[in-house]
Amino acid sequence: MKKHGGYVGKNREDVIDFSVNINPLGVPEKLVTKLKKSIDKLDSYPEIDGLNAREIISKHISISKKNIILGNGATELIYLFAKAFDLEKVLIIEPTFTEYERAFNMNNSKVYHFETRERDNFKVDIQSLVTQIKSIKPDLIVMCNPNNPTGVFTDLDDFNSVIDSLKTMGCMLFVDESFIDFTDKESYISKIDELDVFLLRSMTKLYAVPGLRIGYGLGSEYIIDKLNQYKEPWTINSLALDSVELLLNDSDYLRETEAWYRSEKEFLKLELKKIDDLKIYESEGNFLLCRLKKLKSKQLKDFLLSKGIYIRTCEDFYGLDESFIRLAVRTHRENLSLLNSLYNFFALLS
Amino acid sequence: MKKHGGYVGKNREDVIDFSVNINPLGVPEKLVTKLKKSIDKLDSYPEIDGLNAREIISKHISISKKNIILGNGATELIYLFAKAFDLEKVLIIEPTFTEYERAFNMNNSKVYHFETRERDNFKVDIQSLVTQIKSIKPDLIVMCNPNNPTGVFTDLDDFNSVIDSLKTMGCMLFVDESFIDFTDKESYISKIDELDVFLLRSMTKLYAVPGLRIGYGLGSEYIIDKLNQYKEPWTINSLALDSVELLLNDSDYLRETEAWYRSEKEFLKLELKKIDDLKIYESEGNFLLCRLKKLKSKQLKDFLLSKGIYIRTCEDFYGLDESFIRLAVRTHRENLSLLNSLYNFFALLS
Repeated sequence: MKKHGGYVGKNREDVIDFSVNINPLGVPEKLVTKLKKSIDKLDSYPEIDGLNAREIISKHISISKKNIILGNGATELIYLFAKAFDLEKVLIIEPTFTEYERAFNMNNSKVYHFETRERDNFKVDIQSLVTQIKSIKPDLIVMCNPNNPTGVFTDLDDFNSVIDSLKTMGCMLFVDESFIDFTDKESYISKIDELDVFLLRSMTKLYAVPGLRIGYGLGSEYIIDKLNQYKEPWTINSLALDSVELLLNDSDYLRETEAWYRSEKEFLKLELKKIDDLKIYESEGNFLLCRLKKLKSKQLKDFLLSKGIYIRTCEDFYGLDESFIRLAVRTHRENLSLLNSLYNFFALLS
Repeated sequence: MKKHGGYVGKNREDVIDFSVNINPLGVPEKLVTKLKKSIDKLDSYPEIDGLNAREIISKHISISKKNIILGNGATELIYLFAKAFDLEKVLIIEPTFTEYERAFNMNNSKVYHFETRERDNFKVDIQSLVTQIKSIKPDLIVMCNPNNPTGVFTDLDDFNSVIDSLKTMGCMLFVDESFIDFTDKESYISKIDELDVFLLRSMTKLYAVPGLRIGYGLGSEYIIDKLNQYKEPWTINSLALDSVELLLNDSDYLRETEAWYRSEKEFLKLELKKIDDLKIYESEGNFLLCRLKKLKSKQLKDFLLSKGIYIRTCEDFYGLDESFIRLAVRTHRENLSLLNSLYNFFALLS
C-alpha cells in the first residue's frame, strides 16, 4: 500500500495538514448531531447495497438509481471497476492520483500513460491524446477531472473529439469527478447514455468526512450491473449510509463553504504567486500544485513540519519529481500561518 | 450480491430479528459514549493500515502485529484472500457461509465442496475429508469454526490428521473463527507457525456492531505480507479503528454477555427441543440450526413475520434445503416471544 492520506505522526492535533484536500470547515455540525443519535443503531447490519442512500442520490442529481453505485469511499469503486472489467489495456492521463494505476496493475491490465506536460501547464493536449488512443487502442481511458494533483479541468466541449474516437473504437471512459464540487464546470454526466462512461464521486472532500468512507459512482446500467456482480457485501458502514441525505441537503454548510472557498483560494493563490521561488499552477480544485524553482520538496517539507505544517510532496506522481508540492486551501488563519512560514523559509535561502 | 444481513423491510424497529447472529445486548454503552466524542474527528483520514489498532490486538492476543491484518468487517478479508492468492483449487467444508464460494468463484478458483451430512449432525468426517483432500489436491481448505449455520465445532485434536495431510501437500488452511468468542473451545492460533493458516476474526457478532464494519485476520507473516500487497487503502473507517481498544477491554460488557449467553442459549435449546416437529442441532455458536420435520421453512417464516419475528431460512446454503432454519439466541423476553409464536404455529398445524 501507498503511504498517503494525511499526516499520521505524533501530535496529530497540533499539525496543520495541507497535504489532504479536505474542506477545512470540518465535519458539518448537523451531521455530528445526527450521527450521535445513530450510534445506538450500529447493532444492525448496514443495508447490503445501500438502496435507501442510492434513492436519495437519485433524486438529488436526477438520475435513475439503476445508474448509481455506492462505495466505501471512492477508492472501493476504483478497485471494483478494475476487477469487474478485467481490461487488457488502460490509458491513464498523468500525472494523477496513483490508486488508478495500482488497481489496474493488480488486475493485470497493461497500463499506458498519457503524460501532460509542465510546459503546457499540464493541460491535456487533445490532438495528441486522440493520436495516442488510435495507436494504443486501449479498452479504457482514465481521467481525473478536475485533476489531482494538477488542478486542471478538461472541458467537455474540448473533450468531445476524444469521446468521438472512444465511441468509434468501443473504448470505455472513467472520469474521477471527486473534486467537481469545488468548480462550477460541467460534469460529464450527460455522456452516460452516449458511451460506456463511469463517473466517480466522493463525499469525503466537500463534506470533510474522510473518516466516514462514503463515495458513489454513476454509469450506464450496463456498467453498474457489471460492478454489482463483483461488489462485496456490507462494504459501507451504517453511519456513512445514514449521512447521505443530510449532507446532500445541508445548504447552510454549502453556503459557508462557498464563502470560504471563493475568497480563500484566490487569496492563497495570489499570495503564493508573490514568492519568486515558487511557480503556482491554475487549479479548478481546492488545492494548488506548486513547483519549487531551486530546491527539493523534502527540504521545504521538513522545514514546515518543524513549524507544525505538513505538506504533500509529489515525487510519487507519474511525471512529477522532487520539485513539486501540492497545497490544500485551508482556513484564512491556517493559510496565513503557511504563508508566514513560507516567507521565512525562502528569506533564509536568499 | 446475496440478500442476507438481517431484516430490511418496513418497520425495522418493530421486528425481532432472529436471522442475524448478533449479541442482543446491543452496542456496548461505553462505546456509544466514546464514539459520540469521535465524530468530530471524521475530518481526518483513517490510518491507512490501522497500525494503532493492530498494535492493540497484538497485545491483547499476544501475537506479533506482523501476523495481523484489519478488515472492513471480516468480509473484506475473505475477498482479499481470494484475490491475493488466486488459487486454482479450493475445497470448502459445507454447508457454510456462502461468501467464501462467491469470493473464490469471482477469482476463478475451482471450488470443491466437502459436504458434512445431516445424519452425522453435520460433524466433519475426518477420515473422509483426508481422503478427499488426497484425491482433489486442493491449494486451500476453507472451514468455518464454529461453523455457520450448523454450529459444529471441529476440535483441533481431531483436525490434526487433516493438518498433517495439508502440510505434506503444501495446502493452505483458512479457518473462519468469527464465532469463536461464543465457545470455550481452542482456537487454531497455535498452528500459525506450523503451516500456512489464516484465521478470520470478527468483532461484529460479540460486540453487536455490524454497522461499524470491523474484523481482523491472523496468519503467518508470509500470508499477511501477501494480503497487504493487494489490500485497498482506507477501507476501515475511523470510528471502527477507534473502537478496537475499548471493545477488547470492555470486561463489564463481556461479563454481562456471558451471563446472558450461558443461561439463555441452554434455555432456548431445551424449549425448542420440546417441539416435536422440530429437530435441533447442538451448536457451539450463538445460534441454533433447526430442521422442520413436516413443512417448508417459508411457511414458518411468513407466519412468524406476521407476528413481528424474522428468521433465517437456509435453502441457499450448499447441502441444506427448505426444511432448515437458523435461529439466533436473543434476550429472554425475545426468546419467549419466539417460543410462544412457534407453539401457536405448530398447534395450528396439528
